[in-house]
Amino acid sequence: MKYNAIIVRFSSEIGIKSKPVRKKYEKLVLERIEEVMKESGINYTIEHKYGRIYIYADEPEKVIQRITKIFGIGSVSPAIRTSAIPDDIIKASIALAEGIIKDKLTFKVACRRVGEHPYTSSDIINMVGDAILRKFYGKVKVDLKNPNVEINIEIREDQAYVYVSRLNGVGGLPLGVQGKLVCLLSTGLDSPVACWYAMKRGSEIIPIHFKLSPFISEKSIEIAKRLAKKLFEWAIGIKEKKMYIVHGHGEVLEEIMEKVPRRYICVFCKRMMLRVADVIARRENAYGIVTGDILGEQASQTAENLMVISEAVRLPIYRPLFGFDKTDVEKMARNIGTYEISTSYVEPCKAVPPKPATKAKLSVIWEYENKLDINNLIKKEIDSIEIIKIK
Amino acid sequence: MKYNAIIVRFSSEIGIKSKPVRKKYEKLVLERIEEVMKESGINYTIEHKYGRIYIYADEPEKVIQRITKIFGIGSVSPAIRTSAIPDDIIKASIALAEGIIKDKLTFKVACRRVGEHPYTSSDIINMVGDAILRKFYGKVKVDLKNPNVEINIEIREDQAYVYVSRLNGVGGLPLGVQGKLVCLLSTGLDSPVACWYAMKRGSEIIPIHFKLSPFISEKSIEIAKRLAKKLFEWAIGIKEKKMYIVHGHGEVLEEIMEKVPRRYICVFCKRMMLRVADVIARRENAYGIVTGDILGEQASQTAENLMVISEAVRLPIYRPLFGFDKTDVEKMARNIGTYEISTSYVEPCKAVPPKPATKAKLSVIWEYENKLDINNLIKKEIDSIEIIKIK
Repeated sequence: MKYNAIIVRFSSEIGIKSKPVRKKYEKLVLERIEEVMKESGINYTIEHKYGRIYIYADEPEKVIQRITKIFGIGSVSPAIRTSAIPDDIIKASIALAEGIIKDKLTFKVACRRVGEHPYTSSDIINMVGDAILRKFYGKVKVDLKNPNVEINIEIREDQAYVYVSRLNGVGGLPLGVQGKLVCLLSTGLDSPVACWYAMKRGSEIIPIHFKLSPFISEKSIEIAKRLAKKLFEWAIGIKEKKMYIVHGHGEVLEEIMEKVPRRYICVFCKRMMLRVADVIARRENAYGIVTGDILGEQASQTAENLMVISEAVRLPIYRPLFGFDKTDVEKMARNIGTYEISTSYVEPCKAVPPKPATKAKLSVIWEYENKLDINNLIKKEIDSIEIIKIK
Repeated sequence: MKYNAIIVRFSSEIGIKSKPVRKKYEKLVLERIEEVMKESGINYTIEHKYGRIYIYADEPEKVIQRITKIFGIGSVSPAIRTSAIPDDIIKASIALAEGIIKDKLTFKVACRRVGEHPYTSSDIINMVGDAILRKFYGKVKVDLKNPNVEINIEIREDQAYVYVSRLNGVGGLPLGVQGKLVCLLSTGLDSPVACWYAMKRGSEIIPIHFKLSPFISEKSIEIAKRLAKKLFEWAIGIKEKKMYIVHGHGEVLEEIMEKVPRRYICVFCKRMMLRVADVIARRENAYGIVTGDILGEQASQTAENLMVISEAVRLPIYRPLFGFDKTDVEKMARNIGTYEISTSYVEPCKAVPPKPATKAKLSVIWEYENKLDINNLIKKEIDSIEIIKIK
């Protein structure tokens, strides 16, 4: 007997939402599971009941990894589905045990029940426990406190589900339940991870990549596209997958550089990026700007400079990695799948001065910006925009 | 032979800073370790060399947990310090092995060396390995690939350090290397964790608690003080530990409530908190405001509402938990030590309406605020401030 079902549990946060919100969120998760199943070409049926989703399909192992990536899913278990008749439950439990048996295995049986049955949960635990002990006599032992495996039996009316493993889902909220956000996407490790966290909490994202040539080669565009593509692999169920390339940012930076002290250039660069992102956000009905900033990671990310940089726009700037260590970001980049792409290409920006200012003063920045025609520079960048569909 | 030393390694991020920055950061960590040692009353000496800190003291186990809490420390190892003479190294290694020996233990020896010695690292590995095998004949076995324990020998000129365990430090950057930040501190789970992340990345924090009576009882003040105290346990080496209590916030909210539709009250409440925090930040030379907001967690934390709320101030608002799930926050609250305090007291705010607006419009909020004397309300709250020293 093989697995023929997957039990899907929602993120625990969904369970504490109000009833209409919960209903909406659960429906979205259901639709996305259906999308994954349809893509896979596997025959399936699906049920949404008892606060869970049950997928019935042969070889559910083939889709289970993909399903754990749907935002809003807390955990999944491949299971054997059978009737609620004790003999069937015992048969399924033994079949499951057969697949994992090894010498000196300790186990325990757990049972939860919904509905009216001619037996109690304890009856089932005893029957299944006895059957396994008899079948694998001398090889296995019961250990209620610290077993190697727990054989779980969930009985729901006339159906039963037997499983041992529980894979973590990605958690979060279903993608799309929050308002859209635009995201600054470089080629580094941080910004894709920041984008991903915005998606995890339900926001569709619109990545914006700023071309920095002549300070960074144009190859950055290919890397940014690959990063966006990898991020959108998590955007199951989302139709609109696009990114912005701002081709003119490097040229505008060249112009600025002629008129401002070199040590402030990173501050001006970031202020311009945010201003352009602000314009794009308003066009796209997005509610804020996500960046990969980490407090204190780089010279442009001191508390002083972040304050001065943030002042350029009125939209909120979200920095999901604000409190992260670099090692935390690296770990998440690996999980998300962007680590290999970001590290495949590392090119320092030639605009960065040897000694960048770490404590820029807003009054000084304003003074220089007054000498620049900021609105015209924004227009130049906006005119250089290319919008790319990501497939 | 007992442990008589602790090897302290810096956060890996410190290692990639420029030389002057690294020097400054390492010196701060050193000073804080000295502070912990002095507090403990244990006799000690300390050395900063080879990119590490070596603490020499009897019973180092007594202080090691506290030392792992110093921001900027990557890991620590309790060690036996001895001379670099092979006989002494072997003696220390056997003494260490004696403390951890059990049947069927597999081990490997590793050695790193700085300085000129009449032996190679391989010589030491072989000598120590042989000595342990002979001493514990039949009980232990060498396993180079997957050993139960690794006996590490670090030889530094005429000194050697033998250790087996490596405890994770908290990481981050030394507290105080970043500009100050003010933090909104409620009694819930989220805001203390957000505060902690700001500290972890180097910012001294000034918590601000808003009294919400008559909507929340005054007991919240005691809880907020306990939370601040727990947070400041992590502020090793920081002299100024204080928090603000804004006593008048609840009364101001009562006034606002008379003039605005109830469904928007949470938005007005947060906008007022931020305005007051902005004033305090400027008085305290702080560079931004930290909040415990999580995207999509509550009605006031939708992307739409966060945009409208953020618009109230020009200082940047940092939300370190923006991309977290509630379960992530709970886990961190337990690590930090604030979980018990936050969960000891849960009182819902009576100002929260049954159906709060989840998509407030800025134009609507402005319209109502125009009918309020906002500057006067800010003044009322500022006049109600109490500053408390936290010991």
